[in-house]
Amino acid sequence: MSKPIFQRVALIGLGLIGSSIAWAARRSGAAGELVGHANSEATRARARDLGFCDRITASAAEAVEGADLVILCVPVGAYGAVTAEIAPALKAGAVVSDVGSVKQAAIEAITPHLPDHVHFIPAHPLAGTEHSGPDAGFAELFDNRWCILTPVEDTDPDALADLRAFWESLGARVEHMDAAHHDLVLAVTSHVPHAIAYTMCGVADDMARVTDQEVVQYSAAGFRDFTRIAASDPVMWRDVFLANKSATIEILGRFVEELMTLQRAIRTGDGDHLLAYFTRTRAIRRSIIEAGQDVETPDFGRASRPPHQK
Amino acid sequence: MSKPIFQRVALIGLGLIGSSIAWAARRSGAAGELVGHANSEATRARARDLGFCDRITASAAEAVEGADLVILCVPVGAYGAVTAEIAPALKAGAVVSDVGSVKQAAIEAITPHLPDHVHFIPAHPLAGTEHSGPDAGFAELFDNRWCILTPVEDTDPDALADLRAFWESLGARVEHMDAAHHDLVLAVTSHVPHAIAYTMCGVADDMARVTDQEVVQYSAAGFRDFTRIAASDPVMWRDVFLANKSATIEILGRFVEELMTLQRAIRTGDGDHLLAYFTRTRAIRRSIIEAGQDVETPDFGRASRPPHQK
Repeated sequence: MSKPIFQRVALIGLGLIGSSIAWAARRSGAAGELVGHANSEATRARARDLGFCDRITASAAEAVEGADLVILCVPVGAYGAVTAEIAPALKAGAVVSDVGSVKQAAIEAITPHLPDHVHFIPAHPLAGTEHSGPDAGFAELFDNRWCILTPVEDTDPDALADLRAFWESLGARVEHMDAAHHDLVLAVTSHVPHAIAYTMCGVADDMARVTDQEVVQYSAAGFRDFTRIAASDPVMWRDVFLANKSATIEILGRFVEELMTLQRAIRTGDGDHLLAYFTRTRAIRRSIIEAGQDVETPDFGRASRPPHQK
Repeated sequence: MSKPIFQRVALIGLGLIGSSIAWAARRSGAAGELVGHANSEATRARARDLGFCDRITASAAEAVEGADLVILCVPVGAYGAVTAEIAPALKAGAVVSDVGSVKQAAIEAITPHLPDHVHFIPAHPLAGTEHSGPDAGFAELFDNRWCILTPVEDTDPDALADLRAFWESLGARVEHMDAAHHDLVLAVTSHVPHAIAYTMCGVADDMARVTDQEVVQYSAAGFRDFTRIAASDPVMWRDVFLANKSATIEILGRFVEELMTLQRAIRTGDGDHLLAYFTRTRAIRRSIIEAGQDVETPDFGRASRPPHQK
């Protein structure tokens, strides 16, 4: 247990990310006091039962009173309204941050509402599971995951250092990046993969010549890997696509172009092209495992290990 | 240990599937004797070291001599040549089967070479991991997975019953299906998901404005789920797409149509459409977990569980 980095931390939103920040901050002692707010009474009641915050407040403004760090953990579409609500109650010198998957739109939504006497530093922890809500959180969610900060111009260096230290204490590795570049990188590594996974689920669900039951029964042949990310929170993902429209559409265009090239190789029976293409992609998987961003065990660890590897 | 279902079983090909059949048959006692053959001397040597077969032969014809069940565990593209090679050595009354992911092309490649005195029953176990080769196999690979048999006309009922019992003894659940329907179902649940995953890896690898390092570093945001199936055996997948061309292209067409609908909703900012679409796909994941075809633990079990769920 180290000395708290922020004496009081307010979490606005207590879903998967908000509750995980609370559990991880408890683990590290990075927050002197944890105050939480959720819009729904049911979520607040559940959060009280789970006990990951010291206090749960019914209003967002009450939660941020006297807080040294305020983190918005609500969908990006709610940023404008919630920032307007908390702005008058923010303490001078407080650090205001968020966890949204899109950074340019987050900055545009939040900045106009903030008083001059707070430090706004956008953040995006690249961590999550397919589960949502206060029950889904756990202290290890950010361990060995990246948290990208996209500081705006003239960000206070001390505030930045504190926020960095806070995320590191939650287990994350911290990087800085320009907001526009962040949005493009995430379009490639997250937003378009989600769009594709949702689409493949839609196709499977719609195939009249293949029954729903068959899709489910035979999903282990590959399809089930897509369904995990397509089970993520629908409101959050609606807001991500609306907020990162241009980068998403750019990468979708590249994807379809590449898919058409693959389709042509299939149609014309170009086995050499297919073999070369499928060989290249193995290297990416290897790099991801070496970078500690995935596990090497077969089937993501779902399957047993070979007997001689036990 | 029950009585063997087949006194001698010959496995032609000792990669992930061949070696897993051997381990699983050892576990159940379904094979009196296991004989294995692989084309490469290195694979044969490794298989001898691992010890999952009773005998390893240098020629495929030698392996099938006296065998009551012969299973082709080589890529579909090699079926014609390997069947021609083993045909003269096949014992009268032997059951000949395979494990290929495509069934119409398998039947077309194998049938012309077979003598009348054997029983050919195509099979496809829906199991695998992203790893290949004799080291990748393990006894539990087929547990609770499906094995689809696509019997041709006038299949001998006793041979069919024996092959079914054999796969059940390896842990699999067995279904029968028409070969053409199999190829369509698998295009949806496996072949097109693999094509898409390979394509997304290709796009990520090619993005000049996003570095390779960034793709790897931030892959946990979704992309890494695609890389598992895109790391599967390239030769096998080349053959699958060449052999299941028409169903793959049909489903790819449906996929692109659906993707364009999603893209239009993103471009026009149709939040209601996006929310409804993303909500629907959650139900599919739920069904897959209920059907025992995936695990419910967050992140496929890669992540820790929430503390209150431990």
